[in-house]
Amino acid sequence: MAKCLVVGANGFLGSHLVDELVRLGHEVTAFDRFSMGRVSFTAVGVTRRLGDFLNTGDLVDAVKGQEFVFHFVSTTTPASAENDPTMDIRTNLASTVELLQCCVQAGVTKVFFASTGGAVYGDQPGVELTETALPLPVSPYAIGKLAIEGYLRYFERKHGLQSVTFRISNPYGPRQHPNKKQGVIPIFLHRLAQELPLVVLGDGSMVRDYLYVGDAVRMIGQTVDAGNAYPVYNIGRGLGASLADVLGVIERVTGIIPEVQMQPAPSTYLNHIVLKTDRYQREFGYPDFVSLDEGVAATWNQMNGARDGLG
Amino acid sequence: MAKCLVVGANGFLGSHLVDELVRLGHEVTAFDRFSMGRVSFTAVGVTRRLGDFLNTGDLVDAVKGQEFVFHFVSTTTPASAENDPTMDIRTNLASTVELLQCCVQAGVTKVFFASTGGAVYGDQPGVELTETALPLPVSPYAIGKLAIEGYLRYFERKHGLQSVTFRISNPYGPRQHPNKKQGVIPIFLHRLAQELPLVVLGDGSMVRDYLYVGDAVRMIGQTVDAGNAYPVYNIGRGLGASLADVLGVIERVTGIIPEVQMQPAPSTYLNHIVLKTDRYQREFGYPDFVSLDEGVAATWNQMNGARDGLG
Repeated sequence: MAKCLVVGANGFLGSHLVDELVRLGHEVTAFDRFSMGRVSFTAVGVTRRLGDFLNTGDLVDAVKGQEFVFHFVSTTTPASAENDPTMDIRTNLASTVELLQCCVQAGVTKVFFASTGGAVYGDQPGVELTETALPLPVSPYAIGKLAIEGYLRYFERKHGLQSVTFRISNPYGPRQHPNKKQGVIPIFLHRLAQELPLVVLGDGSMVRDYLYVGDAVRMIGQTVDAGNAYPVYNIGRGLGASLADVLGVIERVTGIIPEVQMQPAPSTYLNHIVLKTDRYQREFGYPDFVSLDEGVAATWNQMNGARDGLG
Repeated sequence: MAKCLVVGANGFLGSHLVDELVRLGHEVTAFDRFSMGRVSFTAVGVTRRLGDFLNTGDLVDAVKGQEFVFHFVSTTTPASAENDPTMDIRTNLASTVELLQCCVQAGVTKVFFASTGGAVYGDQPGVELTETALPLPVSPYAIGKLAIEGYLRYFERKHGLQSVTFRISNPYGPRQHPNKKQGVIPIFLHRLAQELPLVVLGDGSMVRDYLYVGDAVRMIGQTVDAGNAYPVYNIGRGLGASLADVLGVIERVTGIIPEVQMQPAPSTYLNHIVLKTDRYQREFGYPDFVSLDEGVAATWNQMNGARDGLG
């Protein structure tokens, strides 16, 4: 059992991680602005700490006495970082360095970082996306994530602050905010619920490695007590699904035939991202993944008022 | 002949680049704060433009009407970036993005960027440091340079702004400022001239790929009209010299036996960096490199009042 601080604890990934860490028996403090006005995680016994990632004083207070810090906040999405790249630099990158400095000062043992699994590799047709593939990000969001990975390496070497980076593919599931322009599955389901057409970028052939959020946090949770042999792990299913596949699943699960509008894909969108997760699986075992149908159904049901999760 | 703007034109590399571009027949504008109070380059017919890289208005004005922009400024050194990593983020990284935005607005054709050739790869014993080796920087300076390489990729993909990155090894030579804590050769020579002991970090076995600055700018100058098949080139001699070797050369060249003090190397210093420059040589030919003895002699002579260069 460890004292864990989750930064970005009320966000999509962060809130599921809080639940998973509590389930594993850890003592969890949830750091967030809680700007939505409600608490997303459902676990009991979580210490809530109201604070702003951009406020160094808040960070100093939050990391005190913590063993493990989970950096699961981002001030930008891929879309907003592209809209204003210097915002990503001024906020995400600068404040991450300040968070790491706070962790060193407070004697935190280890930092767990949510990086991005697809965008960090960029477009490399025919290249297996293992952790040793060359990262060639073409979006400000991914450039920033990769720079943070670099700072983690620096802080480990300079200050002995241990860390592990999770390059997470395309997580989806309950609690994912459909208005954030990130996560095509909840966006599609939300529009479907509102009887709006679904906007497909490109011709529907764009492939992603969709990962149910419950599986993502289970994979991450497994590494907490076990330690890690490598600094970076791909976190994904290792299975690709095209947008056309996703539309098929949505139709099957909801029983609604969606109206689809095609739009050109932005130039920074990548065609095909499927992660190789052999490194993770060799070390931590093969996760029992939720199927895309099950995951989309759970997301749809929660959106329609059911309690989230697949339990 | 192209209209070339050199940003950081009065700096060490920048000033030699100005001279080389003029020699090649280009029309050169030199952008700099000129904070040293004197002009470093010697070529005639250069348009001087006083401005601050951190001032977006200055950048907007400077890039107007230019075809090629050479980004050869850094607000930090490896030492100062380590001293304050967020400064590197707030100044170098954010202002580079602003410079690139200005270039897009002004219709600049291509950006040439001075990255770092050693630090960007980090410590990888036994790995050949080609441009396809995994970059694993462990210093804030190199993390920032690598992030800039990412933004160049993004601006090319998003806005069609062409670019080329030079990962320059360890350039040395006349005009290198001995007080900047960057460039061990002029620092050693300067201390020798002042009859101060030379401080060797580590046991003297640290190996670097020292490149005479005249050779560096000749290599870069060759790419200007030729175009480039790849986005990134290592720029180095491809030959390693240890600190002990450098001390031997200095003793030979100056005739002075230096007094040496050993100090532990900082944890972010790398042991062995020699670049593979096959990619450059296949495309642009094999440069006729100056020997370390010749280069150190030219640096020493300029420090003692001779005109710089080997002519």
